Amino acid sequence: MYDFAAEPGNNELTVSEGEIIVITNPDVGGGWLEGKNSQGERGLVPTDYVEIITEGAKDGISCGNSLADQAFFDSLSSNTTQTNSAAKSGNQANNASDPWSSWNVGKSGNWDNGNAADSWATKPESAAGQRNSASNNWEAAATTFGHPQAYQGPAAADDDDWDDDWDDPKSTSPSYLGYKENEASEAGGVQRGNSRAAAMKLPLNKFPGFAKPGMEQYLLAKQLAKPKEKISIIIGDYGPMWVYPTSTFDCVVADPKKGSKMYGLKSYIEYQLTCTNTNRSVNHRYKHFDWLYERLLVKFGLAIPIPSLPDKQVTGRFEEEFIKMRMERLQAWMTRMCRHPVVSESEVFQQFLNFRDEKEWKTGKRKAEKDETVGVLIFSTMEPEAPDLDMVEIEQKCDAVGRFTKAMDDGVKELLTVGQEHWKRCTGPLPKEYQKIGKALQSLALVFSTSGYQGESDLNGAITEAGKTYEEIASLVADQPKKDLHFLMETNHEYKGFLGCFPDIIGAHKGAIERVKESDKLVATSKITPQDKQNMVKRVSTMAYALQAEMNHFHSNRIYDYNSVIRLYLEQQAQFYETIAQKLRQALSRFPVM
Amino acid sequence: MYDFAAEPGNNELTVSEGEIIVITNPDVGGGWLEGKNSQGERGLVPTDYVEIITEGAKDGISCGNSLADQAFFDSLSSNTTQTNSAAKSGNQANNASDPWSSWNVGKSGNWDNGNAADSWATKPESAAGQRNSASNNWEAAATTFGHPQAYQGPAAADDDDWDDDWDDPKSTSPSYLGYKENEASEAGGVQRGNSRAAAMKLPLNKFPGFAKPGMEQYLLAKQLAKPKEKISIIIGDYGPMWVYPTSTFDCVVADPKKGSKMYGLKSYIEYQLTCTNTNRSVNHRYKHFDWLYERLLVKFGLAIPIPSLPDKQVTGRFEEEFIKMRMERLQAWMTRMCRHPVVSESEVFQQFLNFRDEKEWKTGKRKAEKDETVGVLIFSTMEPEAPDLDMVEIEQKCDAVGRFTKAMDDGVKELLTVGQEHWKRCTGPLPKEYQKIGKALQSLALVFSTSGYQGESDLNGAITEAGKTYEEIASLVADQPKKDLHFLMETNHEYKGFLGCFPDIIGAHKGAIERVKESDKLVATSKITPQDKQNMVKRVSTMAYALQAEMNHFHSNRIYDYNSVIRLYLEQQAQFYETIAQKLRQALSRFPVM
Repeated sequence: MYDFAAEPGNNELTVSEGEIIVITNPDVGGGWLEGKNSQGERGLVPTDYVEIITEGAKDGISCGNSLADQAFFDSLSSNTTQTNSAAKSGNQANNASDPWSSWNVGKSGNWDNGNAADSWATKPESAAGQRNSASNNWEAAATTFGHPQAYQGPAAADDDDWDDDWDDPKSTSPSYLGYKENEASEAGGVQRGNSRAAAMKLPLNKFPGFAKPGMEQYLLAKQLAKPKEKISIIIGDYGPMWVYPTSTFDCVVADPKKGSKMYGLKSYIEYQLTCTNTNRSVNHRYKHFDWLYERLLVKFGLAIPIPSLPDKQVTGRFEEEFIKMRMERLQAWMTRMCRHPVVSESEVFQQFLNFRDEKEWKTGKRKAEKDETVGVLIFSTMEPEAPDLDMVEIEQKCDAVGRFTKAMDDGVKELLTVGQEHWKRCTGPLPKEYQKIGKALQSLALVFSTSGYQGESDLNGAITEAGKTYEEIASLVADQPKKDLHFLMETNHEYKGFLGCFPDIIGAHKGAIERVKESDKLVATSKITPQDKQNMVKRVSTMAYALQAEMNHFHSNRIYDYNSVIRLYLEQQAQFYETIAQKLRQALSRFPVM
Repeated sequence: MYDFAAEPGNNELTVSEGEIIVITNPDVGGGWLEGKNSQGERGLVPTDYVEIITEGAKDGISCGNSLADQAFFDSLSSNTTQTNSAAKSGNQANNASDPWSSWNVGKSGNWDNGNAADSWATKPESAAGQRNSASNNWEAAATTFGHPQAYQGPAAADDDDWDDDWDDPKSTSPSYLGYKENEASEAGGVQRGNSRAAAMKLPLNKFPGFAKPGMEQYLLAKQLAKPKEKISIIIGDYGPMWVYPTSTFDCVVADPKKGSKMYGLKSYIEYQLTCTNTNRSVNHRYKHFDWLYERLLVKFGLAIPIPSLPDKQVTGRFEEEFIKMRMERLQAWMTRMCRHPVVSESEVFQQFLNFRDEKEWKTGKRKAEKDETVGVLIFSTMEPEAPDLDMVEIEQKCDAVGRFTKAMDDGVKELLTVGQEHWKRCTGPLPKEYQKIGKALQSLALVFSTSGYQGESDLNGAITEAGKTYEEIASLVADQPKKDLHFLMETNHEYKGFLGCFPDIIGAHKGAIERVKESDKLVATSKITPQDKQNMVKRVSTMAYALQAEMNHFHSNRIYDYNSVIRLYLEQQAQFYETIAQKLRQALSRFPVM
């Protein structure tokens, strides 16, 4: 990010702004990393002079992806770096002219006068230059709905043919070293994202629910097919709410094991998942989680925010640490899903956790892929036990959710940015400085001890101890973020994931509302009957109840989570300062009183 | 120091490394300053992206000048800045070929193999590029002794004709704004320093004691003139020591008042000095202190380190703060002098504090200027009550002092450098970051409060309070250095001043030792008698006793001072962290338990 001039003889590496160096050792301690420049020169660079750019994993999962700050987390064990990335998300113009795409945010007056998409999307994301970050969802969604593709049927390919990209050492190791090949695509960050996004978005387009026909089908069908599933919405103390199951469960993700297939040519990590209610275990690979994520997204993604999985990432020399971190996040993701009354009770989710053997898993998998109650059609499974809402109220509630989620998204991003900065300082320059203070005090004591003057050994011992205390403080400072900031960041990171899903959700609701608004014209020209219009209002009302139920679920979780995590943060911070003060008092007590 | 790219619309100013900007407001808060570049563009720049360069005050006082880090202190209220100053002190070759200058450090074997002067002098000094810093004293001293000038008699001019440079608003105000005129002289920092140094060194050359004749006179005189003064050296528990007066006193510097003369054309600040023993007061201007400093330097400077006065400096908009800071340093300087058993009892010092009227002051002043017991001749007033030391021991003791003072000088500079860095961080980026954390938490609470969800007001109130707590912590962090680091820095700064005097002192001793070493040849060629040589050894022995007495005084003060100041530092730091912990616990207690 900045020019850094190496001090000669210090094993340092001179870097200039914009230069890309490959990190050969991301943490040699004291806020330094070892890197290699394009000339192949190696040397130390202060970590806070560089911006870590994660390389390798393709990304751009279409919904609720909080990749931007994930990049920061990943930087903890990532491999490639570049000085400064002017993170422009490269907004593409949304050229949807279809009236059905009028739900598209930015056209509705209440949604920030049409600038919302833009202002949300152009929010600078740290180090997110080449990622299709959450902000791009606006466009992603618009594209999906504005230019629907024909239903292509469920994927026919067997999962064993899936690209094993994360697990495959062939595709990962080279990308770790071969960063230069990718430099060219830097400016086209969105493009890169798209290569993956296209692959990931495919399922969305495979299902009618995510394209216009789904919306028309839901709003205009004379009679909705009675679905086998039924999702209840009741009115509780706080308004509409999902029905919570009487017994809840969590799922413990543990015991990552390296497996291999194709005579060892392909290796992968398998995790053990144990449900707390059944105490039975199943094994899943990352790609199975990925499959589940896509199923949940396709099925519930317009009603319930389904945060994306932790990013795929190349493995490197830090494999163990990386696996640990990803497992921690898979755990968090699974816990979120288990906590959700609708998701956790869904057939696909239950099947994912409870299949008995390979055959049952495959059968369940195919069944889930054939499920047609997806996209907007998920609302057809819902019957709120409450009178229909009128359109004004529906629109107000929807706008309120949009405003809140956007504002919270901003707030969360602000906290993440600040936290990231603070993390860097606490693990980089600050402990280095305390170390220097410690060294300086010890040097001085050493000099003093050569004075030949009698009776100062007590003082010199005390100064030496004070110096050591500052070195201890350096370590305390450097280790502290793992104990408190880490959790604050992870929680915010999770919420960024949730919040990134709302543009799609709000988009679906707004689209439906616009459709109803236009329906008067259709009634006037006898294209639809007044009864059809009545049905439309009822169905949009159902959507509104679902949105409120989900928001109430979201709020109650949010309150609990933020209360817990900020308490934890403050408690840990207080303990941290108390420990430092205590150490200083101890050092002080060694000084002779004169 | 670094490139800084302004964010558009943020009122920021883009600066690049090496660019010089004029600070228009050195502290707009939060670690930012307002500056103006050469194109006249104004904007904000983070304070830690720039290195403050103090401008204006001429400097280069010849002895023991700790200007290098003083520049840092002054930066607290200084005006001009530059991005990165490659502080090279521009060592000039020491071309002294006179054998009498063979005491010159670097030629004597024990003194770090001739590299001492160099390594000491080339030590990088922060922001000291254009200052004739302590390190240059080696050359300054060498020049003075190597090329002595003829005795020119005491200054004839009356003090009213002295250049009132500090007090004179005409000479100060323009230099505050007219930085550009001086840019050209940057490379010639030593030259600039010399313009002042020449003026200040003049008194040294006026007196025989500081030039070669003084040394010969002292070492070779058949019989030393019985001086009226007598400085006793006794042998105490810790070896040779000065005789401490039975009652000590301090001198309180207070009540700075602006005065003017020449019908208001010239203004100056007058300080009131009150002795604690007599409780009588006299008034003195800065230039009187300067006069006293020069007298003490000339008289005692080869036996006792006389640290230079706080630097003269232009007054600006921070006049009050500056006056306060300078008074604090004048106070510290006076206290040092009062604490010294030889200096405090000297006639010139006593007269400075105890004159009864203007007439008595002027008489005393002239008398002091005519004093011929100066330079090396000060040793002629000393009679150690102990047997003569042999030459081997003398040389060893002298070398030991040289080694110690040089090593301590390094240690002190290290601590000053680290402290300066820490000061910048604590007053710049760190509180800014805590403030951001505070703001981010408050923003989040504000967003949360718009959720429309019931029963979260307690949480939101608590998060808001936590945010405010982090803002308070930001202030605590920013204010803390004044409470602890300030004193640690001031003490080290004072000691840097002392230590900077030792090259001259050691130089004089080494010179005398070399003279004795060469005297065998002179005896052999009958240029001097064996009795002359005997006298020389005796007199060099006296010098060695004086050096030891002074070192013992120095050490006892050092031990006391460092013990006090590090204790103070640790105590204040502990309190600081305790306060933060307490505030965090208080914030924590506001969170609802769920």
